[in-house]
Amino acid sequence: MPNDPSINVLGISGSLRKGSLNLKALKAAGGLLPAGCAFQIADISGVPVYDNDVYDKGFPPAVETLRAQVSAADALLIATPEYNYSIPGVLKNAIDWVSRPPDQPFAGKPVALLGASPGGSGTMRAQYHLRQVFVFLDMKPVNKPEVFIPGAAGKFDEAGALTDERTAESLAALGASLVDWTLRLKG
Amino acid sequence: MPNDPSINVLGISGSLRKGSLNLKALKAAGGLLPAGCAFQIADISGVPVYDNDVYDKGFPPAVETLRAQVSAADALLIATPEYNYSIPGVLKNAIDWVSRPPDQPFAGKPVALLGASPGGSGTMRAQYHLRQVFVFLDMKPVNKPEVFIPGAAGKFDEAGALTDERTAESLAALGASLVDWTLRLKG
Amino acid sequence: MPNDPSINVLGISGSLRKGSLNLKALKAAGGLLPAGCAFQIADISGVPVYDNDVYDKGFPPAVETLRAQVSAADALLIATPEYNYSIPGVLKNAIDWVSRPPDQPFAGKPVALLGASPGGSGTMRAQYHLRQVFVFLDMKPVNKPEVFIPGAAGKFDEAGALTDERTAESLAALGASLVDWTLRLKG
Amino acid sequence: MPNDPSINVLGISGSLRKGSLNLKALKAAGGLLPAGCAFQIADISGVPVYDNDVYDKGFPPAVETLRAQVSAADALLIATPEYNYSIPGVLKNAIDWVSRPPDQPFAGKPVALLGASPGGSGTMRAQYHLRQVFVFLDMKPVNKPEVFIPGAAGKFDEAGALTDERTAESLAALGASLVDWTLRLKG
Repeated sequence: MPNDPSINVLGISGSLRKGSLNLKALKAAGGLLPAGCAFQIADISGVPVYDNDVYDKGFPPAVETLRAQVSAADALLIATPEYNYSIPGVLKNAIDWVSRPPDQPFAGKPVALLGASPGGSGTMRAQYHLRQVFVFLDMKPVNKPEVFIPGAAGKFDEAGALTDERTAESLAALGASLVDWTLRLKG
Repeated sequence: MPNDPSINVLGISGSLRKGSLNLKALKAAGGLLPAGCAFQIADISGVPVYDNDVYDKGFPPAVETLRAQVSAADALLIATPEYNYSIPGVLKNAIDWVSRPPDQPFAGKPVALLGASPGGSGTMRAQYHLRQVFVFLDMKPVNKPEVFIPGAAGKFDEAGALTDERTAESLAALGASLVDWTLRLKG
Repeated sequence: MPNDPSINVLGISGSLRKGSLNLKALKAAGGLLPAGCAFQIADISGVPVYDNDVYDKGFPPAVETLRAQVSAADALLIATPEYNYSIPGVLKNAIDWVSRPPDQPFAGKPVALLGASPGGSGTMRAQYHLRQVFVFLDMKPVNKPEVFIPGAAGKFDEAGALTDERTAESLAALGASLVDWTLRLKG
Repeated sequence: MPNDPSINVLGISGSLRKGSLNLKALKAAGGLLPAGCAFQIADISGVPVYDNDVYDKGFPPAVETLRAQVSAADALLIATPEYNYSIPGVLKNAIDWVSRPPDQPFAGKPVALLGASPGGSGTMRAQYHLRQVFVFLDMKPVNKPEVFIPGAAGKFDEAGALTDERTAESLAALGASLVDWTLRLKG
């Protein structure tokens, strides 16, 4: 395992809810990253709905902050809910803002995906839509493991800590895979 | 062609930009609906980003309005841009809000899709992602024609009116198909 | 429930294996169709790999048979495995053959989907790819219920009969939904 | 540009037709690979439709050959038609065979995609389905450029040689991108 303090991972949760299962899962994933990784979670709650007429006047402050965070990251870790069999609008909206010219800070970034759902599929459908988005953005997604966390409501304790051993193993494997992939792409 | 004043079509544009190509295309499509259709375009610009904690306190006013419009419609006509190879976050976000319980006003609604893009694919990728969303929402999409309008910037005049004959024919065919399908499903 | 002997359902299994879980599930689904439906399962094992140079000389006999069966059906019931996160080549190949001009026998057909997998997702990914295929073919898929049968190896007895109550309920609901949808589209 | 004779690229065409536009495009792409690449095109015409009962007795000879070719390749270049808005069954079938245990020769392979169509979309829909397949297979696809060749019938001469300058530039860029990506992943 690498012990490289320069691996800087930015976490993004696709839900704004304070008690979000995906935020909990993202925090757990951050805590299970290989030693030496820096980890922070972006706050997308202040990103307004995208409007090209607003964009023409300049990025809103919350978007500027997010753009700077994405630019500075060596790798991204995205926790996505699934809404209506696709990416949550709120997450897609944040991606849409950040992707706008002049630069495109997602380009070339390694990225790993996870998702937690109350029900059965673990956000599988949302994740494949995100993978198509990554083609346009020229991101470099980790293939394996894919982390789908069904029945997530029963896998965290009152304080929001992950209690499910198998999910913890998956998240640790995902983090290790992301760091390996990031180092491999750095050459 | 049916001449039925009870066919009430609601248009939704996935872009908030005032000079939006998709808004222009949607207006053109509305004007080419079969005689006897009522047509109005929803305003999604006031819909905030989705937050489940906000939802728990009640629907925001712009969402209430949109929910009522969707409920009252016999059929929907959605014009979607394509952002980053998928549905614009702003459009998906409006759908996410409207779809929330207690009722789900999209259920069973006939829907037709169109999309305009400055470049080459005419929003094809966004439209297939929307079709997957429609499965969850139990909407009834028109299969044919599929309306992809590439190079759309050159197909409207200064006043925003559609000038491209072939696009006009496609939009008229789409409207006729939507009305036929709606009547067929009404039985 | 309709008791209409004219509802003629054709089953297609996407696996050629004699002990196929999808064939077992398809047989179970056929047995749970509403009273009055006729049901038969097509044999796609003799369909060769598609070659346009062969097509130019005429349809092979197994394709002719399948084309006639699809043409004669009021509705289709497709049981699909998932291979490599998509439609099995063998199933897609049969669809490709049948779809070729002069006529296109899938056009307008109501269709319902189910899928059984040894593992966890119940062929979800293959089914969404099939739904995109149905847009081109102008088929009319049932939205609900979606039938994903994970862990299928444990849900049939030695003789191949379905033993899982919940799966039986899903299949019965799917059959009822397909017949309702077919009758609704017939008008 | 690398001049490395050890970069061994295997081409696969998803059409069996002798006059296939995709085969022509694949040959053109092969001829435009950076100096030092070895290039050969696999013959998938002898691969039978997949049957697990056949697989249990051993791989058919044409599959064995293809498996060995994929194993030996440093990178793959796949030219795909689009049939019914998805991957041709014949191509998916060959992939399904090759992917079967004990080993899985696609794992970790860099891959680039192109597609030629008589009509307008250049096989876009088939390519995104293939990209989902690559996730399962743990392949490493090139993101850019994406090569969609619409109107392909008019872009080759009588002898099958590519005559369209812009397509040639795209194919050369794709080959260069594939080689760069392969070398980067080799480290």
